[in-house]
Amino acid sequence: MDEWERIEYKPIPVRTLLVEMKNISELMIDLAYSSALFNSHELAEDVLELEKRVDTLALLLKMNIMIAARDARDAEDLLGVSLVSSSADKISDAAADIAYIVLRGIGIHPAVREAFERVEERLGRFEVKRGSILVDRRLRELRLASRIGVDIIAIRRGRDWIIDPKGEDKILEGDVLIARGAPSGIEELRGLSAGTLRRLED
Amino acid sequence: MDEWERIEYKPIPVRTLLVEMKNISELMIDLAYSSALFNSHELAEDVLELEKRVDTLALLLKMNIMIAARDARDAEDLLGVSLVSSSADKISDAAADIAYIVLRGIGIHPAVREAFERVEERLGRFEVKRGSILVDRRLRELRLASRIGVDIIAIRRGRDWIIDPKGEDKILEGDVLIARGAPSGIEELRGLSAGTLRRLED
Repeated sequence: MDEWERIEYKPIPVRTLLVEMKNISELMIDLAYSSALFNSHELAEDVLELEKRVDTLALLLKMNIMIAARDARDAEDLLGVSLVSSSADKISDAAADIAYIVLRGIGIHPAVREAFERVEERLGRFEVKRGSILVDRRLRELRLASRIGVDIIAIRRGRDWIIDPKGEDKILEGDVLIARGAPSGIEELRGLSAGTLRRLED
Repeated sequence: MDEWERIEYKPIPVRTLLVEMKNISELMIDLAYSSALFNSHELAEDVLELEKRVDTLALLLKMNIMIAARDARDAEDLLGVSLVSSSADKISDAAADIAYIVLRGIGIHPAVREAFERVEERLGRFEVKRGSILVDRRLRELRLASRIGVDIIAIRRGRDWIIDPKGEDKILEGDVLIARGAPSGIEELRGLSAGTLRRLED
């Protein structure tokens, strides 16, 4: 938690940074709610790690905006980007507030539970074990959305995160999948990741 | 914009206040993104109005928490509620930041557009005109989700808002419907609200 990355300017397109910040901050809200609902310290730690990433992206974005703006016209154009970036930062802070509730062992009041509960959808976080049929498969081939009604919304790979992974992204052994979907599909994904469920029906 | 409501203590269950704050703050994010994408001042004004409502709810919640807490144990239980409430407040501020981009005429940079675009889903905001077949119908009868793939996520009625309306809620003439769904369904809802489309196919 205390290793601070040295921030160094890298030329990254402003749009890439902004899209990633926005996607991560929204993912964090979902993760934070689920961490509170299921009292999951793992999810709460994920949220705090993502918050650090959002902070880093925010600084990189600031630097890239400075360099991209050559005149008043550019500065006006980029003002919106800068405001959206602060907004994603606030959302990410809000998610971290909720993660702290979990990590500091503050009890989840029934009112909080009610606010966070979503009947239709659940979130799951599963490590892909050796021998799971998911290993080395691309999301495209697995077609989890149509088969079990589940979307992989993020993959945590060691210290890296793939947010909103695409069809060509491959699942590796040891990945942690963050998925959203119908409760039955989430249970299937739990079995598939653990390797206890060996078939994916059409 | 400048009429401030006097805040008076009303005994409202903490859970009711918290659920409403959370739902409104999430709705605001969606509305804010759409206001930026479509440069809609109406949606941006909606966001600012909802922000005032969240502020009011936050104050009412604070008072109700104070009164609900009789001893140290209660105070511990209610700490989580208070933190979630601040978190919803931050999310609501983040949405307001984006609404200001629109209202102050700051151009929408392509990076912002890309961050906010959702291919699958669109948001629509339509006033229900006299003569529309939606008038005086309950959401349950209309079955918009199964028929046209659209969810009514809020109804604005004058200065009031019905957030996340239920099946028994009735649409009245002059209501403003905020809906989310497939682009084709959103276009159908536009016609139905305006009264130019007179049939709802099964």
